[in-house]
Amino acid sequence: MPREATIREVGLRDGLQSIARVLPTAQKMAWIRAAHAAGQREIEVGSFVPARLLPQLADTAELVTFAKTLPGLFVSVLVPNLKGAERAIDSGADLMIVPLSASHAHSLANLRRTPDEVVQEVARIRAARDAAGSNMILEGGVGTAFGCTLQGEVEEGEVLRLMQALLDAGADRVSLADTVGYADPARVQRLFSKARALAGDRLWCGHFHDTRGLGLANVYAALQTGVTRFDACLAGIGGCPHAPGASGNVSTEDLAYMLRSMGIATGVDIAQLLALRQQVAGWLDGETLHGTLWKAGLPKTLTCVQPRGERVLS
Amino acid sequence: MPREATIREVGLRDGLQSIARVLPTAQKMAWIRAAHAAGQREIEVGSFVPARLLPQLADTAELVTFAKTLPGLFVSVLVPNLKGAERAIDSGADLMIVPLSASHAHSLANLRRTPDEVVQEVARIRAARDAAGSNMILEGGVGTAFGCTLQGEVEEGEVLRLMQALLDAGADRVSLADTVGYADPARVQRLFSKARALAGDRLWCGHFHDTRGLGLANVYAALQTGVTRFDACLAGIGGCPHAPGASGNVSTEDLAYMLRSMGIATGVDIAQLLALRQQVAGWLDGETLHGTLWKAGLPKTLTCVQPRGERVLS
Repeated sequence: MPREATIREVGLRDGLQSIARVLPTAQKMAWIRAAHAAGQREIEVGSFVPARLLPQLADTAELVTFAKTLPGLFVSVLVPNLKGAERAIDSGADLMIVPLSASHAHSLANLRRTPDEVVQEVARIRAARDAAGSNMILEGGVGTAFGCTLQGEVEEGEVLRLMQALLDAGADRVSLADTVGYADPARVQRLFSKARALAGDRLWCGHFHDTRGLGLANVYAALQTGVTRFDACLAGIGGCPHAPGASGNVSTEDLAYMLRSMGIATGVDIAQLLALRQQVAGWLDGETLHGTLWKAGLPKTLTCVQPRGERVLS
Repeated sequence: MPREATIREVGLRDGLQSIARVLPTAQKMAWIRAAHAAGQREIEVGSFVPARLLPQLADTAELVTFAKTLPGLFVSVLVPNLKGAERAIDSGADLMIVPLSASHAHSLANLRRTPDEVVQEVARIRAARDAAGSNMILEGGVGTAFGCTLQGEVEEGEVLRLMQALLDAGADRVSLADTVGYADPARVQRLFSKARALAGDRLWCGHFHDTRGLGLANVYAALQTGVTRFDACLAGIGGCPHAPGASGNVSTEDLAYMLRSMGIATGVDIAQLLALRQQVAGWLDGETLHGTLWKAGLPKTLTCVQPRGERVLS
C-alpha cells in the first residue's frame, strides 16, 4: 500500500456539468478556497467547452486565474478539442485533460469522433502546446474503460491500445475512467495492472463512479496496483445521466475517509471537508446528493487529518 | 479470488431487530420464501432472546420451522446465552451464533458480561448441545472487532485471543464483525489474514457494516484473505443505532452484484432480489432503507445470475 495518495477534486467540472443550474462564480471561488484550506491540492475547476453547450462551466478561465492565486494548488481543466486546448494554454492552468472514449459507440455519441480521431486531435494539441512554449501537462483520459451503456462490453485490449496511442501522440499522462459505473474490483485490478505495466508512472489517475455502490472497492483495488491519484466529487454530485437518482462520482469525503482510515496520507482535513459539503449542499438545495460518511461522522478513533509525510497505521 | 461465495441473509435478524415495528410472521415467511426462490441458501431467521426485549423477533421458533421446509435452506439463529441456546437446539435450526464483543465496554453495556464470561457461556452451550445429541453448528461471533463507539480502539491481539478462546470453549466456527462500521480495507486484510492463520476454515463469516461507506471495500479485502461467506441485509435495513440515518449492514443486493460482477458465483438471482427488495420496502414504508444498485439496475453486460459451479470471468 502507498504511504500517500492524492484526491483530485472534480466536483466543479464533472459534478456541475451534470447539474442544470448555474452556480455563481463567487460560490465556485468560495468552494475552491475552502477546498484548498481543507488541504486539497489538485482541483479540476472547469472545462473549455463552448458556453452554449455547458453554460454551467462558462467561467472556467476566470476560475483558473483565481485558483492559481492559492499557494501550491495544482489546477486542471478539461478540454474536448484543439480549440478548447488553445483556451486552456492561454488560461495558465497546470494540466489539461482530453477525454477519449474507448467505446466507439459512446465516442461517436458524445464526442462525435472515433477514438482514433481523438488520438489525432491529441497530437495536434501536443503540437500547439509545444509551439506556445507552454509546460502545461497534457493528460489523455480513457473513458468507458470498463464497459459502456451504449455498446456494452469494451475490450481490455482496445483500452490498452488507445492508451498507448495517446502516449505515442504526445500525452504526458494517461488515466482510466469508469464513466458509467460498470467496473468491479477484479476487473480494476486486472486492467490497472496492465495499464501500469504499459504506462508506468505516466498512469496518472483513476476515475470511478459509484453508480452501483462499488466506487470505493474499485479505488481500493486500484491502490493495490500502485495508482495513487483518484478523481472525486464533493457530496458525490453529478449523479448518473443514464440512471436518475443513482450515484455519480466517488464522493470526496468518503474517499478521504477511506484513505485516512487506511493510514494513507492525503493531507485533507475531513472535518473541514464535511463542513464544506454542508455549504455546497445548501447552494445545491434540491439536487440529489450522495455520500455516506456525512451521516455517521468520523469514528472516535480517528483524528480528522493525517498530514503528508507522517505515517499512521490504522 | 475464490470461485464461489455465500451471502448469509441477516435482514430478518440484524435488520429487523433495529426497527421498532413488528413485521407480521406471514410477511417474514414470504420474505424467506422469496429469498430462497432467488437462490439464497443461508438465512438467519431470528434470535432467541426474551420476547419482551425484542418483540420483533418473538416468532423465531415458528420461522425456523417454516424455513426448514424449504429444500436446501441452511437456517441460522442468534442466541445470547444458554437459555436461548436451549430454545435454538429445540427449534431444529442448523446453526446458532453466539455474539461476543471484543470491546469490554461494549460487552458490559450490551451483553452485561465481560467477553471472557461470554466464552464461559459458550462452553456451557457446547455442553448442552452435546448432551442433547444435537449436531447443530455452534458459531462464535467476535463483534466490535475493528473498534467500538464506546471504548474506541480494540486491539487486534485481544480479538485474536478471544477468537482462540471461543474455539477452545467448543465453538465449531468463528466470525469477525465490524459492529459499528469502523473497519477499513487495510485493517480488514490484516486482521482477517491473522484470523485465518489462527482458525483456518473454521473462520466462517465476515460481517460488515456500511456505516461510513466502506462495507463493500471491506468485503473485497476479506475476500482476498480467502473468506467466502458474508452477512448482509436486504436493502441494508437496520441502520446504525449510534448514527440515525446512517447505513447499517452491507446490503444484500449490492453485495450480490459485486460478487456477480467479479465472476464469483453465489447462485443468487439479482433481478429477483431487487423485486424482493421492492416488496420488503413496501412493508417497511417509512423506514430509512439503503443500498445503491436498485437505483441504477444491472449493467447491460451482466446477466442477473451466475449459477454455482460455472465460472464466468467478469
